[in-house]
Amino acid sequence: MNQSIKLSVDAVVFGYEAGTISVLLIKRKYEPFKGKWAIPGGFVLNNEALEKAVERELKEETGVEINYLEQLYSFGNPNRDPRGRIVSIAYFGLVHPSAFKINASTDAEEVQWFKIDELPQLSFDHKDILKLAISRLQSKITYEPLGFELLDEKFPFSDLENLYTTLLGRPIDRRNFRKKFLKLNILDELDEKISKGSGRPANLFKFNQKRYFKLKQEGIIFDI
Amino acid sequence: MNQSIKLSVDAVVFGYEAGTISVLLIKRKYEPFKGKWAIPGGFVLNNEALEKAVERELKEETGVEINYLEQLYSFGNPNRDPRGRIVSIAYFGLVHPSAFKINASTDAEEVQWFKIDELPQLSFDHKDILKLAISRLQSKITYEPLGFELLDEKFPFSDLENLYTTLLGRPIDRRNFRKKFLKLNILDELDEKISKGSGRPANLFKFNQKRYFKLKQEGIIFDI
Repeated sequence: MNQSIKLSVDAVVFGYEAGTISVLLIKRKYEPFKGKWAIPGGFVLNNEALEKAVERELKEETGVEINYLEQLYSFGNPNRDPRGRIVSIAYFGLVHPSAFKINASTDAEEVQWFKIDELPQLSFDHKDILKLAISRLQSKITYEPLGFELLDEKFPFSDLENLYTTLLGRPIDRRNFRKKFLKLNILDELDEKISKGSGRPANLFKFNQKRYFKLKQEGIIFDI
Repeated sequence: MNQSIKLSVDAVVFGYEAGTISVLLIKRKYEPFKGKWAIPGGFVLNNEALEKAVERELKEETGVEINYLEQLYSFGNPNRDPRGRIVSIAYFGLVHPSAFKINASTDAEEVQWFKIDELPQLSFDHKDILKLAISRLQSKITYEPLGFELLDEKFPFSDLENLYTTLLGRPIDRRNFRKKFLKLNILDELDEKISKGSGRPANLFKFNQKRYFKLKQEGIIFDI
């Protein structure tokens, strides 16, 4: 077997905060695409599990430690990298940016969160990778409730609505959304209220992790 | 970069026929796992697109030509192959077995369809690959109607029910299923009937491809 293909991993890390989605990018220190923005990533070591490789590269280049990235897709177009044939296995995850301190190092000159509607030009085929990651994230939240780790521990229902509206990038039928979500029975309505702006005080909710994992195991379909 | 990882592709081909699901396996001609059954696959050529590689390997080993396999997942456990570090990108597809003539060659000694509940022992981590493929297939049909290419051009609704029951491996709420499916408006009810067994003649349906692709583009969620 005279194969000369190299294998890399890339980490698409989305951040959700205050009604906006951003993505973590690095500015490349070396050629190719020196000085251009890219998704963090790099080569897999010979005896390294793929998940370890993507966590290591992410940490080395951005200072961000995440151990729950999900595999997105493998990109293998023979011309995707000017250095030769490099197949990249992309991973993605969704976090709260303020929980992480970013810090460029190794082959990253800078690291920065970019709003996904204000992206710079990207290196390699990273625009395609990002596009697929966004579409996967959007389809995922339509059949599996997620994102609770991005909300406060206790939150008014409107925070959950905002999360979904932002992630989907489109308005939702609010009454229907609330009805369907509550029917899942994974939120506990608390005896506490919060006042925001001039509206009347809103009830607070808390995510019921136990019932959520039970539901997830049964194969929940959440149709919004 | 002193990387010595090799890259392969594997093809999980499911067959649906007469209420059973099967999978296409080959018996290995060479070590490792000589004489054992495995999912068809092999190494990617240096300048070959991943999709081309999986189609070529499938054709070489089984005689089956399919050009619409979908990427499933990349398997990269450092110990998955006794020959060294080999990362495999698995693809999957669903076909009508009788439409294909199987024919073992290259490094396959035999090729055979196996019912998925009567599988032989599998080589490498192919049991895990197959398990993930089945679960992906099942979750896919719950949020995206598919499988029409497996039915006759005109079919009674019960054929569609049987397809879903078989693929899901569990009974479905028939009345609800019919209601929800018809609501999607991608089936044309014909002015023709078919008699099967002793029941009263059933109306025939035809799949409306145009409306289906429109629905698919809009991002259909089909909750059964």
